[in-house]
Amino acid sequence: MAPAKALSNAFGKVFIATSVDGFIARPDGSLDWLPAGGDGGEDYGYAAFMKTVDGIVMGRSTYESVLGFESWPFDKPVVVMSRTLGSGDVPVHLRGKLRITSAQPAQLVAELRAEGWGSAYIDGGAVIRAFLAAGEVGEMTITRVPVLIGAGRPLFGDIGCDLRLACLASQAYPSGMVSTRYRVEAGGRVMVRNGGGDE
Amino acid sequence: MAPAKALSNAFGKVFIATSVDGFIARPDGSLDWLPAGGDGGEDYGYAAFMKTVDGIVMGRSTYESVLGFESWPFDKPVVVMSRTLGSGDVPVHLRGKLRITSAQPAQLVAELRAEGWGSAYIDGGAVIRAFLAAGEVGEMTITRVPVLIGAGRPLFGDIGCDLRLACLASQAYPSGMVSTRYRVEAGGRVMVRNGGGDE
Repeated sequence: MAPAKALSNAFGKVFIATSVDGFIARPDGSLDWLPAGGDGGEDYGYAAFMKTVDGIVMGRSTYESVLGFESWPFDKPVVVMSRTLGSGDVPVHLRGKLRITSAQPAQLVAELRAEGWGSAYIDGGAVIRAFLAAGEVGEMTITRVPVLIGAGRPLFGDIGCDLRLACLASQAYPSGMVSTRYRVEAGGRVMVRNGGGDE
Repeated sequence: MAPAKALSNAFGKVFIATSVDGFIARPDGSLDWLPAGGDGGEDYGYAAFMKTVDGIVMGRSTYESVLGFESWPFDKPVVVMSRTLGSGDVPVHLRGKLRITSAQPAQLVAELRAEGWGSAYIDGGAVIRAFLAAGEVGEMTITRVPVLIGAGRPLFGDIGCDLRLACLASQAYPSGMVSTRYRVEAGGRVMVRNGGGDE
């Protein structure tokens, strides 16, 4: 097989909160276990992170959550990956801010790069897993919320191989949140599960 | 229900490594994803932790792994929780160092406290989950190994309620390991899943 992709150039960046047991939502999608908004104005690095990306790629479920917010929270372009929604589903007030695509990660990355995007915030469990499997996540900031919720929607899944990470930075906040930034060292095509060699 | 147990007095302390995706072993029990021994002599706080406990409580599966080591690694008393092993299964060279019990966590804690133990290192996935469910874990040190392995034996399970944690300390090591020490704030009987109130 080809050598592992140079992921320092990978397109996707993940920035997400999980419970200490690895869930991003309860089984019904509920986020009531997240700290109530505010935290004394602490944003856990979110604003600084957003400055490093050219836009946001998310799944339909994340999109529908965001639609429930009081106002649209993004000032950068958003792409929603969906096999069921079409461009006719973009609400009038979001035209020009949002597009919907049925493209797979590799194709979408090629399209967005051609438009001049250097990197994107990848959000939502299924989309994150698809980008990880495609070797298109270069960096992940995982913020652990100090709670065990026992069951829910996991952040990670099985992509059929190991992904080695490197810790770039880690910070504990007074609230008990611990935020760790990882670089993804080897892409989704390096099979190390059975003995360490490339397949 | 009764107020949440004062867990500052809880008996169990967990000290364990997991992958970033929350596994303590591959599906077949393999630990090949852990860093090779040594790490330049770094023990990630293990020796200091061991000084804080009076002994070790582990499950059969952990015990059988340890039996495969070159030598018995513990100089404190070990209790193995098992429904299938009996005291006749203690190897001759471990007599006096090891006992086997079929007691459940609450009963075992009562017995060990009566013998003068103040706290124990709780090791092994199933035993950790049983002690968490019983409200008998006061502190957990979780060391995240910088790798996603995709599938395996999870550290945590569903105990039917949330467990709130407080972060006591967090440290990133040059190897990329991130070790976080949590206090368990509310015991296994505080149901917060449906709205936040005690049940």
